[in-house]
Amino acid sequence: MRIDKQKIKQLNDQALPEHRESFDHLSDVLGRKGFDSKAIVEKLKEFQVAVPSWALGTGGTRFGRFSGGGEPGTLEDKIADVGLLHQLSKSAGAISLHIPWDIPEDVQATKELAASHGLIFDAVNSNTFQDQPDQEHSYKFGSLCHADKEVRKQAVNHNLEVIKYGDALGSKSLTVWLADGSSFPGQLNFKKAFQRTLESLQEIYAGMPADWKLFVEYKPYEPNFYSTVIQDWGTSHMLADKLGDRAYSLVDLGHHLPNTNIEQIVATLMMVGKLGGFHFNDSKYGDDDVTVGALKPYQLFLIFNELVDGMEDPSSDNPYPAWMIDASHNLKDPLEDLLQSLEAIKLAYAQALLVDRTALEEARENNDPALAQEILQAAYRTDVRPLLAEARLQAEGALDPIGAYRRLNVRKELITQRGEKVISTGL
Amino acid sequence: MRIDKQKIKQLNDQALPEHRESFDHLSDVLGRKGFDSKAIVEKLKEFQVAVPSWALGTGGTRFGRFSGGGEPGTLEDKIADVGLLHQLSKSAGAISLHIPWDIPEDVQATKELAASHGLIFDAVNSNTFQDQPDQEHSYKFGSLCHADKEVRKQAVNHNLEVIKYGDALGSKSLTVWLADGSSFPGQLNFKKAFQRTLESLQEIYAGMPADWKLFVEYKPYEPNFYSTVIQDWGTSHMLADKLGDRAYSLVDLGHHLPNTNIEQIVATLMMVGKLGGFHFNDSKYGDDDVTVGALKPYQLFLIFNELVDGMEDPSSDNPYPAWMIDASHNLKDPLEDLLQSLEAIKLAYAQALLVDRTALEEARENNDPALAQEILQAAYRTDVRPLLAEARLQAEGALDPIGAYRRLNVRKELITQRGEKVISTGL
Amino acid sequence: MRIDKQKIKQLNDQALPEHRESFDHLSDVLGRKGFDSKAIVEKLKEFQVAVPSWALGTGGTRFGRFSGGGEPGTLEDKIADVGLLHQLSKSAGAISLHIPWDIPEDVQATKELAASHGLIFDAVNSNTFQDQPDQEHSYKFGSLCHADKEVRKQAVNHNLEVIKYGDALGSKSLTVWLADGSSFPGQLNFKKAFQRTLESLQEIYAGMPADWKLFVEYKPYEPNFYSTVIQDWGTSHMLADKLGDRAYSLVDLGHHLPNTNIEQIVATLMMVGKLGGFHFNDSKYGDDDVTVGALKPYQLFLIFNELVDGMEDPSSDNPYPAWMIDASHNLKDPLEDLLQSLEAIKLAYAQALLVDRTALEEARENNDPALAQEILQAAYRTDVRPLLAEARLQAEGALDPIGAYRRLNVRKELITQRGEKVISTGL
Amino acid sequence: MRIDKQKIKQLNDQALPEHRESFDHLSDVLGRKGFDSKAIVEKLKEFQVAVPSWALGTGGTRFGRFSGGGEPGTLEDKIADVGLLHQLSKSAGAISLHIPWDIPEDVQATKELAASHGLIFDAVNSNTFQDQPDQEHSYKFGSLCHADKEVRKQAVNHNLEVIKYGDALGSKSLTVWLADGSSFPGQLNFKKAFQRTLESLQEIYAGMPADWKLFVEYKPYEPNFYSTVIQDWGTSHMLADKLGDRAYSLVDLGHHLPNTNIEQIVATLMMVGKLGGFHFNDSKYGDDDVTVGALKPYQLFLIFNELVDGMEDPSSDNPYPAWMIDASHNLKDPLEDLLQSLEAIKLAYAQALLVDRTALEEARENNDPALAQEILQAAYRTDVRPLLAEARLQAEGALDPIGAYRRLNVRKELITQRGEKVISTGL
Repeated sequence: MRIDKQKIKQLNDQALPEHRESFDHLSDVLGRKGFDSKAIVEKLKEFQVAVPSWALGTGGTRFGRFSGGGEPGTLEDKIADVGLLHQLSKSAGAISLHIPWDIPEDVQATKELAASHGLIFDAVNSNTFQDQPDQEHSYKFGSLCHADKEVRKQAVNHNLEVIKYGDALGSKSLTVWLADGSSFPGQLNFKKAFQRTLESLQEIYAGMPADWKLFVEYKPYEPNFYSTVIQDWGTSHMLADKLGDRAYSLVDLGHHLPNTNIEQIVATLMMVGKLGGFHFNDSKYGDDDVTVGALKPYQLFLIFNELVDGMEDPSSDNPYPAWMIDASHNLKDPLEDLLQSLEAIKLAYAQALLVDRTALEEARENNDPALAQEILQAAYRTDVRPLLAEARLQAEGALDPIGAYRRLNVRKELITQRGEKVISTGL
Repeated sequence: MRIDKQKIKQLNDQALPEHRESFDHLSDVLGRKGFDSKAIVEKLKEFQVAVPSWALGTGGTRFGRFSGGGEPGTLEDKIADVGLLHQLSKSAGAISLHIPWDIPEDVQATKELAASHGLIFDAVNSNTFQDQPDQEHSYKFGSLCHADKEVRKQAVNHNLEVIKYGDALGSKSLTVWLADGSSFPGQLNFKKAFQRTLESLQEIYAGMPADWKLFVEYKPYEPNFYSTVIQDWGTSHMLADKLGDRAYSLVDLGHHLPNTNIEQIVATLMMVGKLGGFHFNDSKYGDDDVTVGALKPYQLFLIFNELVDGMEDPSSDNPYPAWMIDASHNLKDPLEDLLQSLEAIKLAYAQALLVDRTALEEARENNDPALAQEILQAAYRTDVRPLLAEARLQAEGALDPIGAYRRLNVRKELITQRGEKVISTGL
Repeated sequence: MRIDKQKIKQLNDQALPEHRESFDHLSDVLGRKGFDSKAIVEKLKEFQVAVPSWALGTGGTRFGRFSGGGEPGTLEDKIADVGLLHQLSKSAGAISLHIPWDIPEDVQATKELAASHGLIFDAVNSNTFQDQPDQEHSYKFGSLCHADKEVRKQAVNHNLEVIKYGDALGSKSLTVWLADGSSFPGQLNFKKAFQRTLESLQEIYAGMPADWKLFVEYKPYEPNFYSTVIQDWGTSHMLADKLGDRAYSLVDLGHHLPNTNIEQIVATLMMVGKLGGFHFNDSKYGDDDVTVGALKPYQLFLIFNELVDGMEDPSSDNPYPAWMIDASHNLKDPLEDLLQSLEAIKLAYAQALLVDRTALEEARENNDPALAQEILQAAYRTDVRPLLAEARLQAEGALDPIGAYRRLNVRKELITQRGEKVISTGL
Repeated sequence: MRIDKQKIKQLNDQALPEHRESFDHLSDVLGRKGFDSKAIVEKLKEFQVAVPSWALGTGGTRFGRFSGGGEPGTLEDKIADVGLLHQLSKSAGAISLHIPWDIPEDVQATKELAASHGLIFDAVNSNTFQDQPDQEHSYKFGSLCHADKEVRKQAVNHNLEVIKYGDALGSKSLTVWLADGSSFPGQLNFKKAFQRTLESLQEIYAGMPADWKLFVEYKPYEPNFYSTVIQDWGTSHMLADKLGDRAYSLVDLGHHLPNTNIEQIVATLMMVGKLGGFHFNDSKYGDDDVTVGALKPYQLFLIFNELVDGMEDPSSDNPYPAWMIDASHNLKDPLEDLLQSLEAIKLAYAQALLVDRTALEEARENNDPALAQEILQAAYRTDVRPLLAEARLQAEGALDPIGAYRRLNVRKELITQRGEKVISTGL
């Protein structure tokens, strides 16, 4: 389904006077501090986050899964769902495919369908952490790191196939996340596992088109519970460094040990030009994969503070990072959950754009942590919602995406079209 | 299948001379320190740990599941598997049923089958964290704490039914573990959730036979990722305290925040007579549910040090705790995994029996932490494997359970009988 | 020193037009959502947080301490410093004494001095975690839990003396924080330590005036690194419950294991009427004691959401909690640090007052976590700084306390008066 | 003081028959498994751990310090204390100096004194985390990373001076641990801090003699509570990599976030030839610095399993690591504490030497985690204390070092010589 543009407009019109007032007031306040609201609104309009194809259905835990209704059963439905998100938020202009869950049957038609929703295909994702029904070798004991060369070869070939699909759709990067690791002390030879993974990645890297990038994701644990081959950014960076210029680290917010200073990792990787991509979610305990900003919005702001710093640094050779939401929607309607995530991401981005970087740098050079904190918090405490609303308004999205989604009964319509019991592939 | 007793004996006979030598040497060493090896062997023979009916198959994570072969497809097969464990280890003399996964069709036959393996039925477990196909109300948003009275009623009735099955089989206790909680700030009214849970538990408590006990398990997170209704021992204890004399807390090793001093919780609960049961497993990150003793054997020893202290305290009115292994077997053969867990548990128990408690108490009263540590470590560093082997030998188990399991090709035989692709109920 | 009122007024006058505009805009916005800004401003004016007497100097770590200048060397100076904080913020209307660091020599004069600054004396704090030069017995191995009855007696008597001083000054409560515990497995008999602590606390409780309250603080570790006698809220509550109606638990934000859901603890304790006090600070790793709100402002808001819920619950019999800042100022000017903490606390309080509790409760009863989150975040994302500024303005404080502090060169003046090298008692 | 050799021999003679019996029994058991006890005893005799000069006195926390008696007040006394440890344990044959706490006045005499105790000087340590009385610039806001070039220069010069002292004494390496970092978000520009640190380290590196090594230590937090410049092994390795061939990472067991897989870090660094040194201690919560092996002896074994693997790998170009105990002795007699640490280290080493590496590698290649665990645990569960005792006996140390220390009243004698109230420099 697609939402009737006029209906969005009608809802916007009702809310317009209040929005105008708030936006104007905020513009005045910011203007007095030297910030140009219009320029910020432009940046917010440009900022697009990819939605992965597996994130449109209800997720689950090892204890079970509680389906919702109207879930997308096909790739076409999934593209339509991202299209809905984009129509409302004007921030979800890309889709990130997960192979083999979402293999396009007709590449050209798939591209055209996506384009009709204003969507492009961002990084593609391989999957060697599950066995597929017709698979020759099992990944129970690893894939790219497996002791058996035949298993590694199968996993490498799968990645090469993923690249092929991505290339046909216009993607320009491959994200490799490995579950490879061990659940028991002694199970794995750490050094051999690293070397085998490196060799496998080298084959994949060699098989990428010349304008592609390879993103190496890291994660400290789960689904393995003692070790993972790529346990942290240091290991990911070591691999990316050995692979070549077009290999980068990818940071997933949920893939860190308790209390990790993630913003410093972001700064470090950008400093050496090696931050390739970023996966958004939030968590309290582990890789909980809940809605972005649901728990630690200030941490998200601090991370964006470094991202903006890196992106705006003229001396940096870090490429523009690939953004993606990587969350699991166990309890909420996935589309509402994603709208909340998109909002949280852009709030943090907008707040980071309001940091007075000159003053901040001066406070740092003067060893004045109290003032540095005042500067950061002045930006963070600003209610930037009117900026986001304005960006959406200008792009013909909804002033209030979730409000519109609910008032327009989108989920009900999806259930009518698709039924109560569809299960998304990959869930 | 059952293992031919003669085969176990043959294997034991081969290993007997070396075992005798090691046991005699250890007996001498311990004797000089005032410990009676025979008395310790007797205690080890008496110590039995329940195996839950769901633990005989291959487990999984939210990312997938890699089956093994020869898994038990029926309750009868599961009882047979526990029977094998008990035959080899002489330590797994009880089975803990999980309803609705393992509802006995013919109670009398089930009891007799178990008895023929030397097994009794320990605590029964209810399940209100998943929806069953024919279920009227969903537990997506909780069970005993649910906002809707009808859902709570359904969950209470399920527990009453579980008690009924358990009573028929000879069980004397019910373990309630709740997934109830919330994944997002704001989702739950903490106080209402507690009160509703309390009321539901009161109905269940009232429905237990007069000689039954209720065990209230706690867990800080997962499958909910922001809060759980019974987040810690304090909450569990508050509930047990309000419920009555036959309600107790149950400690699961994996259900704690990082770095929790679990042994102190054990001591505290036993001090007030409220430790009802104990679930064994091990973990590095969260509720990883790996083999007992695979990661923190010294912590397990410290916990047993408190358990032994509580069990041997004549002034304590704490009941003898219900022991159960609660682990997930994702990578190893489940039976080998359980044999390793049983071994680790009894090693820790044996070491705890070797703590010189009089000397320890004296060191404590003298504020001598170095000496207290020496006393604990002297017990822990002792190689107590000959004590366990001797206990098994006297009970006609295997001197080397895993060795026997492998040399007798038990898994191969199970696969022959049951096939490669059976999936256990509940997995 | 005291700041000339006129100077504060002058600074306020300059900022007044902008403040008026922002406040009026916010009042309009809130008014449309059904909130009465004036009523909220009144609540903010009433809300006062105690500053402890030891928090006015530069703190340190075990690795060292880097002094600042102009620190208060006497109790009189400390009272003056809190007076300055209160003059600027109108939120620091109480002082919390720490004995033996700040024993008043002339009680009447001390009371009058405090009153002249608009300050009252809140909870008094005992110290049995350090040895004083003239002390008979050492607390190296504990105080209220010590194996030696004479040491326990000394510690009890110290607490009784603290009560005596507090009583003379008008305090109505005693906070007991114990470092008692152990750094090595085996060192302590957990049960004896608990029982001895309980008996000691009973003696202290018996020695309190009839209108006094006893606050039992908990902490999982540090300065002991294996166990503490009162490791968590469950233990604290067990003690408070056994002590009597006027004994309560006290929550310090930094005294929890990683990832603890503190807001649920707050809700639980208020539910049973047993939350006595609250110590504010912030932390990323352990009991880091940094500026309130410097790291996890959303968590602080969630906690205030529960505090407000409990305080506004007519059915609750929980007393109004005692608020105190308990932070260490290692790098910042302590007065600036405290002003930032006061601001962060009141921001969270104001945001919590903006939660639409009726709508929230409805979303909860409807199992609508997305909406519940929207409601909480709508409050949190509101820029409530104008409400705080208005409250200060009406109370004749500074619109911008830190700005005023810097522009009026307060620290420079303090250094002139007191010198560069004074060291506060207790540091 | 020095212990009379004859007294140690007398004590050994009394315990000899029991020791012989246990050692012979163990040799038989190990021999049947293919291990040569004599060869292992030789390796244990060779293994020496440095004791830092600051570890001989009573440590403290930010809450206070409880002195013991007979502490060493001079460098000579400290050397004598390490001499005592070495005499008893024959494992503490090196001392690691900390400048400026322990500047030798007469280098030649100091060298001779150490040699007379059988001690050499291992890695020297600089200190730029505290201000010394006569210091021009403060390290309050960092040292090698400081915003002010003059401060960095002072810190570099201090390191060059430390090298000079070390060189004179025969040391061959410098350990740099930095407290540099920030306690508040915003305080530090992560990238500038890294670059400045790198430049400072380059100057130090350039100032080292050609046969010296530089060890770059990392730590995630404390005494800074938001960020540290060298937060993890990845950052340390990046620095060491940029510095040159003679720069290495140094791992301190307590300097990791909760649940870090340290053994994998060790394996990774040795794989790339970049593990320079290792600091031993143990901890439950943070950098608790308690006795080695007091809490997680199995983790220590797993780490030694990797260390042995790396040391015995003929293809590895990793240098032999520098070992040091880095613990704080707050409650125990420091010498007893160090003897316990030495014992725990060598137990783990001995157990790691008993791992059947051929069988382990085979189990790994066969994806047999159960067998791999059996192999590791078979080594770990062996009571290797007789091997350590035999190594000491052959080297003329004490069969039972702590027993001897207590029976010979060493502490009492030290108190008689030095008094009750000496405070070690640096504490």
